[in-house]
Amino acid sequence: MDLHGYFNSSTSFRVRIALALKGVSATSLPVNLREQAQRSAAHVGLNPSAGVPVLVDGDFVLTQSLAIIDYLDARHPVPRLIPEAGEARARVLELSLGVACDIHPVNNMRVLRYLQQVLGVSDAQKQAWYQHWVAEGLEATEQLLARHGHGPYCFGEQPTLADCCLVPQVANAQRMGCAMHAFPRIAAIHAHCMAQPAFQAAAPANQPDFVA
Amino acid sequence: MDLHGYFNSSTSFRVRIALALKGVSATSLPVNLREQAQRSAAHVGLNPSAGVPVLVDGDFVLTQSLAIIDYLDARHPVPRLIPEAGEARARVLELSLGVACDIHPVNNMRVLRYLQQVLGVSDAQKQAWYQHWVAEGLEATEQLLARHGHGPYCFGEQPTLADCCLVPQVANAQRMGCAMHAFPRIAAIHAHCMAQPAFQAAAPANQPDFVA
Repeated sequence: MDLHGYFNSSTSFRVRIALALKGVSATSLPVNLREQAQRSAAHVGLNPSAGVPVLVDGDFVLTQSLAIIDYLDARHPVPRLIPEAGEARARVLELSLGVACDIHPVNNMRVLRYLQQVLGVSDAQKQAWYQHWVAEGLEATEQLLARHGHGPYCFGEQPTLADCCLVPQVANAQRMGCAMHAFPRIAAIHAHCMAQPAFQAAAPANQPDFVA
Repeated sequence: MDLHGYFNSSTSFRVRIALALKGVSATSLPVNLREQAQRSAAHVGLNPSAGVPVLVDGDFVLTQSLAIIDYLDARHPVPRLIPEAGEARARVLELSLGVACDIHPVNNMRVLRYLQQVLGVSDAQKQAWYQHWVAEGLEATEQLLARHGHGPYCFGEQPTLADCCLVPQVANAQRMGCAMHAFPRIAAIHAHCMAQPAFQAAAPANQPDFVA
């Protein structure tokens, strides 16, 4: 199995966490987003969305990190990352989709590039944009955790898809200088996760294509 | 069951389609996004993300349109909108998440408002932004359909979550004046869906809060 990804792509990071938690190995094939390698003919041939991650399992090619993790959860169900049913399932999907649909996309690299290259915003405006959406999104996530979460992971004693989504979002936020003190539940979950070997193995700094 | 939504919110439209296809009735409770009603204390108390849709089923409150449809699919499995397993499931999730994560969020009303009110972009720049992300996203969706789709719906003879996501995205694109001629597969699926009673019943123009 091959995973086309990039060390500091948070969507790639999500899938790497899932693979590591399940103990499934995949060959990591770096796609250098800073050099726009995702727009190469070879990569667009693989993924018409010109993005990462892409999972290649034999002749089966799958894009979209949450679809990939759902696929891995069916093929390698130990540990299960998306609860099979009931309120537990709904809560995990709700929090995960909050990160995946409400926070991450607006601060994606292609969006930041458009802001700078087409709309000509300044570095300070770009930074304010980034921090605005992170703060708004993590505030909502913190509230959801206050209502439904129960640690040390987002939902209990075992990691789920929610942790696979939240941890990379926090890593991005920290890299962009966002203050985390207003989000004590998120910070505690992040710290707990990053003390676990699977999350460490999946971290950007431990990928073969990492550049400081 | 209550559905808090807004007539031309495409994420609310997704859930309305799912409810209509399943023949499940829900009381529609309008949240006027143009008047920022989603930021009222009452609504934020319900949904800390200050968004729609929100499903309220007894004392169970759920946000995120895809989590809501997944919940409805378990409670009211006829017709099933997310295939239970295998490649069919992966393809439906892949296309749905492409719309939900890559296309819709960047053109959300709150994002367009920030562009205008904080960054001071012109109407023409806002329109170009909108059309840029729609064109890029629908191009990728069209390619995915060329590879894996088989009509008259996105994936076969029955509607799925993919159609629940794609049709509202096309409605938004048309409202914003995006050209659809480059996406013949998407246009044909949209036309087929909108000829069906469930999709018609869910359409913005047929909601009680509709304003032209």
